[in-house]
Amino acid sequence: MIAIASRKEVAELAGVSEATVSRVLNNVGPLKEKTKERVIAAARELGYTPSSLARSFARKRSGNLGVVMPYLPKARLFSAYYFSEILSGIGSRAREEGYDLLMIFREADEPLDYCGLFRMRKVDACIVLGAKEEAGELEALRQLKKDGHPYCLINQHYEGESFHEVDADHVEGCQLAVKHLLSQGFTRIAFLNGPQAYSNSRDRLEGYMQALQEEGIPADASLMFEGNFSRRSGMAAAQAILPQLEHIEAVVVANDRMAIGLQQGLRELGVNTDRMPAIVGYDDSDAAELTTPALSSVRVPFYQLGEIAAAKVLELLENGGVNSGNEMIRVKLPAKLVVRASSLRTGGIQ
Amino acid sequence: MIAIASRKEVAELAGVSEATVSRVLNNVGPLKEKTKERVIAAARELGYTPSSLARSFARKRSGNLGVVMPYLPKARLFSAYYFSEILSGIGSRAREEGYDLLMIFREADEPLDYCGLFRMRKVDACIVLGAKEEAGELEALRQLKKDGHPYCLINQHYEGESFHEVDADHVEGCQLAVKHLLSQGFTRIAFLNGPQAYSNSRDRLEGYMQALQEEGIPADASLMFEGNFSRRSGMAAAQAILPQLEHIEAVVVANDRMAIGLQQGLRELGVNTDRMPAIVGYDDSDAAELTTPALSSVRVPFYQLGEIAAAKVLELLENGGVNSGNEMIRVKLPAKLVVRASSLRTGGIQ
Repeated sequence: MIAIASRKEVAELAGVSEATVSRVLNNVGPLKEKTKERVIAAARELGYTPSSLARSFARKRSGNLGVVMPYLPKARLFSAYYFSEILSGIGSRAREEGYDLLMIFREADEPLDYCGLFRMRKVDACIVLGAKEEAGELEALRQLKKDGHPYCLINQHYEGESFHEVDADHVEGCQLAVKHLLSQGFTRIAFLNGPQAYSNSRDRLEGYMQALQEEGIPADASLMFEGNFSRRSGMAAAQAILPQLEHIEAVVVANDRMAIGLQQGLRELGVNTDRMPAIVGYDDSDAAELTTPALSSVRVPFYQLGEIAAAKVLELLENGGVNSGNEMIRVKLPAKLVVRASSLRTGGIQ
Repeated sequence: MIAIASRKEVAELAGVSEATVSRVLNNVGPLKEKTKERVIAAARELGYTPSSLARSFARKRSGNLGVVMPYLPKARLFSAYYFSEILSGIGSRAREEGYDLLMIFREADEPLDYCGLFRMRKVDACIVLGAKEEAGELEALRQLKKDGHPYCLINQHYEGESFHEVDADHVEGCQLAVKHLLSQGFTRIAFLNGPQAYSNSRDRLEGYMQALQEEGIPADASLMFEGNFSRRSGMAAAQAILPQLEHIEAVVVANDRMAIGLQQGLRELGVNTDRMPAIVGYDDSDAAELTTPALSSVRVPFYQLGEIAAAKVLELLENGGVNSGNEMIRVKLPAKLVVRASSLRTGGIQ
């Protein structure tokens, strides 16, 4: 239609790759000054100009709200109560605001170039789920903040850092669970927590310790166990807990999946209803009221966390990003305890 | 950096909007020939050229696999077993192939301009979930097919049309449920189906009718009920079924949610274990084995449906789309029956 030089010709004349031509003309660094000059000179000579059309593409919004999620091969992420509830909340708000949801799966321990998502115009704003305490992750988040892109973390905070975050009060959530068990007369209360790389695990630990301390009960490392939030790891914990079962009256578990795995694992190891410790799960997932005995659990408003994070991050976007004098997003929602048969003095009988 | 005319100047000189300038230069119709000529002349006069950079943007892949889903305000879509399993399968395969997942929520009965998703470069390929028998929808799908974009439907087919589709055999699935109930000696078998706008509902009806017919049992319209797949609609069906309960020995239900709602609804209406009809659900969701009595259910390989649809549609993409001589995607996976306590002759005792 209109004769023009190609990017390839510019690249050849400048003696660089086509990617470098794009990087120069999109002003996406880092690049040596000399390379820049050479590319610009070649583009001029050939009459190759990144049109304002191209530049308008560069500025154009994608209409996508990004959600970064951990990816585990074979795991059914959307089927986990935790993620499905948060995503339902995010999706609902995004839809109301006219945004589509771009799900970005990240391999475990693969730090993501969050800024690249913005640079490539894949997203206008992004929400990060399942971030962990890890050097590469922290670096990527700092860059995201520094570049002024609209972002928000859900359910994770970093000591000494100030990131946009929406979280539930897991210190209080775990306190509620322990206090309830204490009120039932249990004092030997074990704790099956999640990995310490998650701040929500550390928060739960803090709540557990505080609640015991208030009653003058010393912490006992032999009563603390760790799983990875899977049902399987709850079953594995049953093996570790069994030898100590005569000392353990109750167990607080960091999510319902592990709690159900623990119930199941203990039953399979021959622990009958009379010897079953009282159990309080965490999340109050759909499954909690369907198991036998029905599982007491700490209810976390995941849907609302998702909804609020989406609303806040899209507000940031409308206001021109974090660096326009906006306040930091800092939301902490309360958790509450739902008591069912599994944690009552009468034991495992519904 | 490089002085160029702006799109705005071109628009002013040509006496058209900036959007029209873009449409002409991106060759996105429909536009009058005269308008095109005027815009091109103005662009030439001002030395405004859509660079090959811009054109490469136009051709560039987004790296996104689109998933179109129905949107219901307040509903927790990701929490529904049906969607979460399909999405987990799609997401897993997309991730393996290096694609991100763009979730596009569509209001019920709002036909979507699927082709626009491609035109705007939001997606490179797309999978449509929850499509219904509806004129606007059919039109949009026909256009998608005609334009040669890579797409695939899951769990929906249209009589007399030839779209790419991945489905499970719901005729056989429902037959299995009815035959199992017949084998238990039940002959008065009611059917609580989903809306007829979904082909999977019509397929189930066909399976129900066939299985009865093979035993010489005439169909009885008074035994057929319809819900909308929600737990609530299952509870509502309990009200409709109650007055006929002395004639009804068993109920086949089109998904587990409604089946659980029906169990619950009947119990709340005072139907005790002895009078509870045998029930077979459909989907074999997580909840099926957790309810009391545990629910017999037709297992549908949703995760695999998602995985296969993603694999097939990305294959289409690599092969240059539907119009490059590819065969139609036509996959039908078998369903199977999982028998639990709810459908056995002994009644509702686990």
